[in-house]
Amino acid sequence: MSLLVVGTVAFDAIETPFGKVDKIIGGSATYVGLSASYYGQEIRVVSVVGDDFPQETIKDFNARGIDTAGVQVMKGEKSFFWSGKYHHDMNSRDTLVTDLNVLADFDPKIPEEYRNSDFLMLGNIDPELQIKVIDQMERRPHLIAMDTMNFWMDINLPGLHKVMTMVDILIVNDEEARQLTGEYSLVKAARKILDMGPRFLIIKKGEHGALLFDRDHIFFAPALPLEEVFDPTGAGDTFAGGFMGYITKTRNLSFDNMKRGVIHGSAMASFCVSKFGPERLLDLKDMEIEDRINDFVDLVHFDLDLAE
Amino acid sequence: MSLLVVGTVAFDAIETPFGKVDKIIGGSATYVGLSASYYGQEIRVVSVVGDDFPQETIKDFNARGIDTAGVQVMKGEKSFFWSGKYHHDMNSRDTLVTDLNVLADFDPKIPEEYRNSDFLMLGNIDPELQIKVIDQMERRPHLIAMDTMNFWMDINLPGLHKVMTMVDILIVNDEEARQLTGEYSLVKAARKILDMGPRFLIIKKGEHGALLFDRDHIFFAPALPLEEVFDPTGAGDTFAGGFMGYITKTRNLSFDNMKRGVIHGSAMASFCVSKFGPERLLDLKDMEIEDRINDFVDLVHFDLDLAE
Repeated sequence: MSLLVVGTVAFDAIETPFGKVDKIIGGSATYVGLSASYYGQEIRVVSVVGDDFPQETIKDFNARGIDTAGVQVMKGEKSFFWSGKYHHDMNSRDTLVTDLNVLADFDPKIPEEYRNSDFLMLGNIDPELQIKVIDQMERRPHLIAMDTMNFWMDINLPGLHKVMTMVDILIVNDEEARQLTGEYSLVKAARKILDMGPRFLIIKKGEHGALLFDRDHIFFAPALPLEEVFDPTGAGDTFAGGFMGYITKTRNLSFDNMKRGVIHGSAMASFCVSKFGPERLLDLKDMEIEDRINDFVDLVHFDLDLAE
Repeated sequence: MSLLVVGTVAFDAIETPFGKVDKIIGGSATYVGLSASYYGQEIRVVSVVGDDFPQETIKDFNARGIDTAGVQVMKGEKSFFWSGKYHHDMNSRDTLVTDLNVLADFDPKIPEEYRNSDFLMLGNIDPELQIKVIDQMERRPHLIAMDTMNFWMDINLPGLHKVMTMVDILIVNDEEARQLTGEYSLVKAARKILDMGPRFLIIKKGEHGALLFDRDHIFFAPALPLEEVFDPTGAGDTFAGGFMGYITKTRNLSFDNMKRGVIHGSAMASFCVSKFGPERLLDLKDMEIEDRINDFVDLVHFDLDLAE
């Protein structure tokens, strides 16, 4: 099965209470793609970078089985750059710099050979571009997931509403779900979002876990309690990548299987935050992922029957 | 089995984004006692009130099977009064008024017939008083649980450390666990707290659920995602009451049974927040509690095996 990922491939500068990095690899498609690559499927990335982007990193992606034929390299231009600083609680951050660079004119062209992709993950880009991507597909993917952010709610809410009618699952954080609906209660927010189009909704709550909704069910997966969170950057995209990687591999769109996808996404995210940037996602062993999944089972498992 | 609860019985005035009440029944022993009363055990309360406290409420407690012989009534004095205002997110609040009144000279006297209680829950009072309570027991209870708050860490940390060596389980919120240990990571904080004495630790995270720790295990229970949280006051004590009520009923101190206790506590807390004050805890049906417990099972249950 194939998963098409459209999003950013970029540079980040990050400061957390644990340290500081000036220029490392970042971007939503980077995290989604690397995370999904652990599920043994064909991962195809559409993005744009400047010619300052290291060929070595592209080779790292390819070494993980990620097809980068859809990553346009713009000659003489610079890659998207984001810089942010996390506060002590790691749940809030300030954006220090956003240099759009090549992203300002990004016009995602889906290569011919990607247009039959079985699954599609639309990273957080302009809703108009998300629509353009869907329109280029030669057949509808089995499942289309999308991310978005407050910025698009502020400047292009109609576009966002339109693309939401075209996708199966929205993956956002709690703050975004609240802004999108004007509801503080996530249960109420979820109902409103499902009325806007998607059949499924995932609300990510950072260190507080993630909620999966359809019209009739709610599932909650905690984040793994960790000794240290070094850098939360990309954790949400890593979650989405693990989720979509698992769904692409299993091709099962039942709510029960979506739950498993959420657990896999949570496990992958727990690795991501343990080092700066996507470093930890480059060399995970299958056994490490399996052990981590089992940590989740142990963390939430209980048996109501009292056997004394 | 019998559960002795020592804590406050008081008046609260509460303002939330959903409304305002000027004077309702509150206090830690009120919430713990009412919540624990659903587990069919002997619940005994030691507290102090002024003669302004309504006899009717005492009768409500008795009607729920709660023994109030240990509630001292101080003639001509006023009951403890707390007033607070919740912010929009319901996770933070400002204390507006704290009138200690009778609480200022509270000296818990454990009635003779309470001194053989099988289980003991020490609500959030001065650590010196918590020690005094334990010292009055004629035999050590099977399990002693205690709550505390930042205030005691500020003014009597040595006393707090001492009582912590005398109890089995500490039940605090995330902020308190962090202040007590100076660790932001709850995993690190838990390790330090277990080094201070208790064998078990529960960290309550409000709408984000609760964590149970011993030296070798972590268990996480979410809070039920609710349409509305009208008033979080007492939710933590209601959690503790459900937990201790369940443990008192089952008399099983294994980690697996503690997990069930945490689920019961979470279920009881989810009822508490749906109305102002302890109102919802006065007339719950067993079937409602059972249904709520099953909601928790549904919320977190997943099966890793893919059965297509």
